Amino acid sequence: MATVAFIGLGNMGGPMAANLVKAGMTVTGFDLNPAALKALTDIGGLSANTACGAAAAADIVITMLPAGKHVRSLYIGNNDQKGILDVVGKDTLLIDCSTIDADSARTVAAAAADKGLEFIDAPVSGGTAGAAAGTLTFICGGSDKAFEQAKTVLDVMGANIFHAGGAGAGQIAKICNNMLLSVLMVGTSEALSMGIDNGLDPKVLSDIMKVSSGGNWTLDKYNPCPGVMDAVPSSKGYQGGFMVDLMVKDLGLAMDAALSSQSSTPMGALARSLYVSHAKGGTKPGENGKRDFSSIFEQFAVPANDE
Amino acid sequence: MATVAFIGLGNMGGPMAANLVKAGMTVTGFDLNPAALKALTDIGGLSANTACGAAAAADIVITMLPAGKHVRSLYIGNNDQKGILDVVGKDTLLIDCSTIDADSARTVAAAAADKGLEFIDAPVSGGTAGAAAGTLTFICGGSDKAFEQAKTVLDVMGANIFHAGGAGAGQIAKICNNMLLSVLMVGTSEALSMGIDNGLDPKVLSDIMKVSSGGNWTLDKYNPCPGVMDAVPSSKGYQGGFMVDLMVKDLGLAMDAALSSQSSTPMGALARSLYVSHAKGGTKPGENGKRDFSSIFEQFAVPANDE
Amino acid sequence: MATVAFIGLGNMGGPMAANLVKAGMTVTGFDLNPAALKALTDIGGLSANTACGAAAAADIVITMLPAGKHVRSLYIGNNDQKGILDVVGKDTLLIDCSTIDADSARTVAAAAADKGLEFIDAPVSGGTAGAAAGTLTFICGGSDKAFEQAKTVLDVMGANIFHAGGAGAGQIAKICNNMLLSVLMVGTSEALSMGIDNGLDPKVLSDIMKVSSGGNWTLDKYNPCPGVMDAVPSSKGYQGGFMVDLMVKDLGLAMDAALSSQSSTPMGALARSLYVSHAKGGTKPGENGKRDFSSIFEQFAVPANDE
Amino acid sequence: MATVAFIGLGNMGGPMAANLVKAGMTVTGFDLNPAALKALTDIGGLSANTACGAAAAADIVITMLPAGKHVRSLYIGNNDQKGILDVVGKDTLLIDCSTIDADSARTVAAAAADKGLEFIDAPVSGGTAGAAAGTLTFICGGSDKAFEQAKTVLDVMGANIFHAGGAGAGQIAKICNNMLLSVLMVGTSEALSMGIDNGLDPKVLSDIMKVSSGGNWTLDKYNPCPGVMDAVPSSKGYQGGFMVDLMVKDLGLAMDAALSSQSSTPMGALARSLYVSHAKGGTKPGENGKRDFSSIFEQFAVPANDE
Repeated sequence: MATVAFIGLGNMGGPMAANLVKAGMTVTGFDLNPAALKALTDIGGLSANTACGAAAAADIVITMLPAGKHVRSLYIGNNDQKGILDVVGKDTLLIDCSTIDADSARTVAAAAADKGLEFIDAPVSGGTAGAAAGTLTFICGGSDKAFEQAKTVLDVMGANIFHAGGAGAGQIAKICNNMLLSVLMVGTSEALSMGIDNGLDPKVLSDIMKVSSGGNWTLDKYNPCPGVMDAVPSSKGYQGGFMVDLMVKDLGLAMDAALSSQSSTPMGALARSLYVSHAKGGTKPGENGKRDFSSIFEQFAVPANDE
Repeated sequence: MATVAFIGLGNMGGPMAANLVKAGMTVTGFDLNPAALKALTDIGGLSANTACGAAAAADIVITMLPAGKHVRSLYIGNNDQKGILDVVGKDTLLIDCSTIDADSARTVAAAAADKGLEFIDAPVSGGTAGAAAGTLTFICGGSDKAFEQAKTVLDVMGANIFHAGGAGAGQIAKICNNMLLSVLMVGTSEALSMGIDNGLDPKVLSDIMKVSSGGNWTLDKYNPCPGVMDAVPSSKGYQGGFMVDLMVKDLGLAMDAALSSQSSTPMGALARSLYVSHAKGGTKPGENGKRDFSSIFEQFAVPANDE
Repeated sequence: MATVAFIGLGNMGGPMAANLVKAGMTVTGFDLNPAALKALTDIGGLSANTACGAAAAADIVITMLPAGKHVRSLYIGNNDQKGILDVVGKDTLLIDCSTIDADSARTVAAAAADKGLEFIDAPVSGGTAGAAAGTLTFICGGSDKAFEQAKTVLDVMGANIFHAGGAGAGQIAKICNNMLLSVLMVGTSEALSMGIDNGLDPKVLSDIMKVSSGGNWTLDKYNPCPGVMDAVPSSKGYQGGFMVDLMVKDLGLAMDAALSSQSSTPMGALARSLYVSHAKGGTKPGENGKRDFSSIFEQFAVPANDE
Repeated sequence: MATVAFIGLGNMGGPMAANLVKAGMTVTGFDLNPAALKALTDIGGLSANTACGAAAAADIVITMLPAGKHVRSLYIGNNDQKGILDVVGKDTLLIDCSTIDADSARTVAAAAADKGLEFIDAPVSGGTAGAAAGTLTFICGGSDKAFEQAKTVLDVMGANIFHAGGAGAGQIAKICNNMLLSVLMVGTSEALSMGIDNGLDPKVLSDIMKVSSGGNWTLDKYNPCPGVMDAVPSSKGYQGGFMVDLMVKDLGLAMDAALSSQSSTPMGALARSLYVSHAKGGTKPGENGKRDFSSIFEQFAVPANDE
């Protein structure tokens, strides 16, 4: 069975690595935070002193990092420090599960290809709950061969593994999806609010639209209007779920891609500005950024009289 | 079995009335166009010389007209001319299947109520093909009792009969849905285009998004990118389907409602302006207005080199 | 000297009528509010018991009313009641200073023309301060001859009298201007905020842009960023000035016109939705509606406290 | 008198350098294009074999390059090649007149400061005509002392020299201005079009708005409606002026800044998408990109022919 190096054991990476350990794999972890590393060794994982140390001996390297600059720096290194690409064996498969800009993913993939290595960008969705449950979605970019190889290990951590295309395609597909999601959420929020403003019951209106041509994921799974669905963030004060600040981050990546490819995205760009403005608000400044992204509904709903 | 008066026997009303005749009902029609009236009598319907003449003797009156002013004028009449409300019997059920502004629907419903009559606004979707096949969708506003009664006759012409609420609720629910649909279509078009601009295969990207959180009706049934789905307008030169000009009309009704209810609809309003601008274009001015509404995709797609 | 009937003596109409009295004109007023009427008679005006009573004896009728329905009803009357058009002499000049939808203005103008009467739509800007000072701006629609005649009396109440075109043109020109103003205000607010977010001094940035190609009325006269200009609403807690609720009203009239003329107005429509959402907010719901319209700046600015 | 090195002698840089020569300065130029270099030596300038060769001996270095990556690379160099910062004397003043992303400007300024050098970002506007006439506008970022020093040489090439703030502030101020300009242009275009759609004369409407609260630079200097002003691009088939593709570039830089500073810019983002879509169109694909940016007016105007 393949040995895995797992770099980045935070809220997402930690439970993902744990699922690999539980599946019987040999997992050597690295994280700058000793507590995160200890959590892995406590359940039977191994630890390394450096990221490159973990990577050097592994068949598969998996990384889970905050932003493109971290991924570029870790894989490519710099004048003073070697990168993962400099230390791994020639058959090592490299999988980056971070959500980062597509240009960074393509840059690392090209640098890997220069050394004859296969690199997969495999951004993930599904949140910390999905990471723990092993039900994440991975959207991958890279060669067919590398994707098939990556799939065996991603299957352990996820329920849906997509192959979007070549290098960077995983990042692009994820942000296309999340940009579209933001548009669905805003569009659904304003349609429901306009219905309410005109005397309709949001539950009745939701039931009609979800089986009509307005049907979309937010009506099926994530209705933004409080009280329409149970057990979704809108019915729990917009707590939990997918934070506004994370949607703002993903929409920033989407706009990066749109700028890079000269694409026109009027709805996506509008959604970004609406979410940025929303994130700044709340009962104290910035509070909305920590609430679920369906709270954008409040920008359209008539305020309750006694708020 | 109930006798029906059917006023307005155009592209939609004609086949709808025909389905009632085929179901064995006694249908007396009226239309300003003699050819339309003859088409009904040819299959066994009856004709009247005036709309009120048709309505006076019927148990159920169904109207299918272009705009709110026609509906108000026909039902309420004016100084010089009686309206339908002045001539029908006290138990007659009134059903207006036109897509009109909600204020007009509420006005007629209130005038009907003043005379003790039940009025249902029941705008329809599904197009001329659905009218012929009897698979239309009706979204109704009116009392529970009147809705149950209307349902028996609407079932003959349609496959999905929804009750959205009181007077005018059918119109509101329909335009909320269609406003949301326009947002789904534009948002999906720009997400697919951004993917294509970044080297993704639109079919692969569509397959990923439709089972992810970007999933929506346009990806399931009506992909706007040529070649992704068979037998949809985008794969037939954007011919057939739901015309841009009709989407512009519905978005105008949606904006009317938003103005009336002081609702904020940034996405819906943007979609309207994009569709109005789109409608004006084409290889000759105004041509796009006659194409399917998924042709908005062309506003985002990279032009083919040799167009 | 011409005798004037002045209907509608509220916050705007009252001081406007007073300026006519001060100029030595014979002014007969009417208002549903006795206190408003008394204010006129206290300074030497006359009062009438009805609007038509005031109008019947006048050379010039001036009206200042809240909305199109009031103007239509007052001039045209209905089955039960005569309108101004039914009672005035054949040479009476009719001037409506209300800000209303262009369709209503055109309807009244057409009804007046049917009786051989001249009607001018002359919406006003400049606020209550301008009304008191006699420095209002009037933007007029109507025939050249009627405009020249109206100008003599409007000059008494205002400083700038424009002739925009035929019937309804005054209303159209005013809402085109105010729609553009809303776009200038939002666009300037986001440009200044982006500058501030990047470390620029808003005063320095304003000074540069106002003499460059970003120059516009809001930078010259009404900077939305607190502290940049003295004596503007932004430097007084956004009190005074032109209320958000009034901008929302004017943007509603602009959207009415855009719908009626099938115009594409993406910026104007976006400004409307941003203002409607803004109006609903504040430290208590709806409070922002009563603040100056430059307070939209707060939707873009980084929140002040302790970040 | 100071000696100047001028790197980048293209359509803008060439005439700018020529004005320095004409003013009697010793100017040593460099450009990858020999013809551009020859044009300078023909009028009395000197030439260098490399950019660093030109810079090493100069009191003032001026650069005019296409994008941030060129500026970073030229000043900072890389492993294989020295940068300007490595070769210049300790009192050399560095002035970059390129329009680039603010992050690149800040990066170079910081690298210069590390070596004790003063760097000014001084993006320019005014086009090739202004470059030839010496009437350009420079918007500068950098220290007070360096700005005063730079001003003496910029005055030779320009008519308006602004100091926007510290490092990068010139770039930020320029793109804030140009983002606002794009909003003015779109907003003015749709206001004029709505007026025209409602029967107004665009010249009359322009005259009213430019002295009212809708007043802005585009109405004063650059009316987008054909026939309203003489000698502007809209009256010359939208030829000449400031190309759509250049506005798209500047809006891209503005969006880069907005992403970097987490700013909400709904109008600016919408203008960018409208301009990107516009650039793709024309009588053949991409043709609009080469037309003047006021041609966005055509997206709103009723099509001309035979309607």
